[in-house]
Amino acid sequence: MDIRDLRINGERLKSTLERMAEIGRTSGGGVHRLALSDEDKQARDLLIKWLQEIELEVAVDEMGNIFGRRAGKKDNLPPVMSGSHIDSQPKGGRFDGILGVMGALEVMRTIQENQIENTRPIMIVDWTNEEGSRFSPAMAGSGVWTGKLERDWAYARKDFHGKKIGEELERIGYKGQALAKRWPVYAYFELHIEQGPILERVGKKIGIPQGIVGIRWYDVFIEGKANQVGPTPMEGRNDALCSAAEMILQVEALPAQMGGNMVATVGEIHNDPNSRNIIPGQVHFTVDIRSWDDPLTDRAEGELQTGFQKIATKRNCPARIEKIWKVEHTPFDEFLVTQVGKIAAQLGYPSYSLVSGAGHDATYMSQVAPTAMIFVPSIGGRSHVEVENTRWEDCEAGGNVLLHCILQSAR
Amino acid sequence: MDIRDLRINGERLKSTLERMAEIGRTSGGGVHRLALSDEDKQARDLLIKWLQEIELEVAVDEMGNIFGRRAGKKDNLPPVMSGSHIDSQPKGGRFDGILGVMGALEVMRTIQENQIENTRPIMIVDWTNEEGSRFSPAMAGSGVWTGKLERDWAYARKDFHGKKIGEELERIGYKGQALAKRWPVYAYFELHIEQGPILERVGKKIGIPQGIVGIRWYDVFIEGKANQVGPTPMEGRNDALCSAAEMILQVEALPAQMGGNMVATVGEIHNDPNSRNIIPGQVHFTVDIRSWDDPLTDRAEGELQTGFQKIATKRNCPARIEKIWKVEHTPFDEFLVTQVGKIAAQLGYPSYSLVSGAGHDATYMSQVAPTAMIFVPSIGGRSHVEVENTRWEDCEAGGNVLLHCILQSAR
Repeated sequence: MDIRDLRINGERLKSTLERMAEIGRTSGGGVHRLALSDEDKQARDLLIKWLQEIELEVAVDEMGNIFGRRAGKKDNLPPVMSGSHIDSQPKGGRFDGILGVMGALEVMRTIQENQIENTRPIMIVDWTNEEGSRFSPAMAGSGVWTGKLERDWAYARKDFHGKKIGEELERIGYKGQALAKRWPVYAYFELHIEQGPILERVGKKIGIPQGIVGIRWYDVFIEGKANQVGPTPMEGRNDALCSAAEMILQVEALPAQMGGNMVATVGEIHNDPNSRNIIPGQVHFTVDIRSWDDPLTDRAEGELQTGFQKIATKRNCPARIEKIWKVEHTPFDEFLVTQVGKIAAQLGYPSYSLVSGAGHDATYMSQVAPTAMIFVPSIGGRSHVEVENTRWEDCEAGGNVLLHCILQSAR
Repeated sequence: MDIRDLRINGERLKSTLERMAEIGRTSGGGVHRLALSDEDKQARDLLIKWLQEIELEVAVDEMGNIFGRRAGKKDNLPPVMSGSHIDSQPKGGRFDGILGVMGALEVMRTIQENQIENTRPIMIVDWTNEEGSRFSPAMAGSGVWTGKLERDWAYARKDFHGKKIGEELERIGYKGQALAKRWPVYAYFELHIEQGPILERVGKKIGIPQGIVGIRWYDVFIEGKANQVGPTPMEGRNDALCSAAEMILQVEALPAQMGGNMVATVGEIHNDPNSRNIIPGQVHFTVDIRSWDDPLTDRAEGELQTGFQKIATKRNCPARIEKIWKVEHTPFDEFLVTQVGKIAAQLGYPSYSLVSGAGHDATYMSQVAPTAMIFVPSIGGRSHVEVENTRWEDCEAGGNVLLHCILQSAR
């Protein structure tokens, strides 16, 4: 058989994903499988069973990252790696993360059953705590493994109930022996749902991210003056929530105002005292700005500062803006990105070049190894919700692109 | 002595208020004395001791309302009554409510020590749970006494921890024997801080409320679409919080748009899932509209409905508006209101006619008896906060107006 005719088993990928979706299944049809929870452990155990069934060499490192290794003919060469994460958002979906792990598993199964000879070793990986919704920060497993985060600092991160990553790794039996320390990687591929509506809108099966946008997070604190609503005339009020409302609309208008590709969002707001008959005295809200274009984001930040201060002055409600996180945009490896596009074309899948608006383990990986991602469409662009969905044929298409990316790199 | 020369003892009123402010004192200089708490009990015990010291006949009714009665020469005539409430907001101030009780006490002390002969009996009253911040609804004691609320329904109202009014009345020993059932009242006066900035702005010592504004409460529920912020372009988002922000600014603009005397406020907002990197999917916020002019408020409600629906349609975020409470404006007794103004003038205090933007026990009382209120200035217009303050000389002025209102009515 010409290796170019090799395809994954779409039915098997589907049933594997369906089996995984039983672990932490929610009544709304989604998955609740928080990092290092009992559900995460169950899913990990199942993954390891499946890895062993196809005779991969399994290792768990001290961050709980799980690796499955297929030896290569030249086994000392840096491996080709592929994977993603098993953990989900609270009441999240059945595809985010897990598709990248089950996709790589399906590729490994296909390679195994067809007795393909690979020159380089091939590895599948499940990274611990990508979502960051139980333990902040996100991408903790890949962060430590790539040397971007400290292991002991990561161990000490606590969830809402005060449980630490280190303790929870031990509790579920996934604090492994291997060092969480990177080794040379020849190429890293991550298959993932788009989590946006673009592929669906343009009607393409495969998305080829050029990289990951730059992200900035801000906390905004507004100081108004709480007072009884009834006896306090409109004139002379210092209503922190009205101030925030103006700022929220300014954030929303920012991308159009700046031009270029940018999203800006207020996702979180806290109002104090938050009482029906008291004028809001203090408001805290967050701003998230993402763009591929870092200088444009610099200018947007300046616009926001100026605009917020104008509102603060006009309303006599002082505002403090704290920048709490900033990552520049992350371009993926040009050669691998091109390769993804070529393979999609060879397989007859219409593809589309875009950028990833969300962070992934590939963010850290791209800083230490040639990296590319493969996106498949999200129905309605929805993700991090129970209705998150992707057509099975699109999962299969993504798996086939991943298969040939891995084969070409490992050849 | 000409009775018109009689004055209360301002120093004594001050020290009485200061003594009361020790009960539930907060580090920020305010008072935390929630209805039926241990602090409320302490303050009640002290009040009763003071009432007994001036030989008033003390009674506690089944709602915990405390009455102190000074007999009149024609003791069968309906009494003149005056009072307010001892309970405070959480971390509230040292004047709201308690000034009306201590003011009436000071009047009683002045009448007692000057051996004034009153034709009608005179009664002081402390109403249970006026604030409504521990147990909803507000004005529960006066509500039951005036027959506007059911006793057993009121008994069953629960605080945040599930404790009921009935149980807590028993616990602190203030479930009295007397029926909480109104008797004929000749005149009811309530001395209170303004809780707004108007008297301070116009530089007057005494405020003469014509009555209490009408109040309407609404709950607004917005349905957007939650999604990951990064991969979701601005175009096509259904951001429930941006929708809410537009509506909040519309509420703020409403009074100017409608003309007339009106306040409109969004005090409370709940955003879901309220996560930094998820587009808000659902928002619930409250609207409070107050005006003396009920037909104007009807029209304002219509404007809001129309405006909100426009925003909802434009953003494709359906909005549901529920009206949860409505009270028409409450005019006070014309004769008594005029009397308050005349007495203030006779005493040489500059006075100002206004309306009360907040509810008071006087709201219920005015539905069963001729009623008037006397306002004194709030420094900076602040109330329901620890920095709530009123000048001692203004407290004294209010006390003197109350004294002569009571004397004239009880003469």
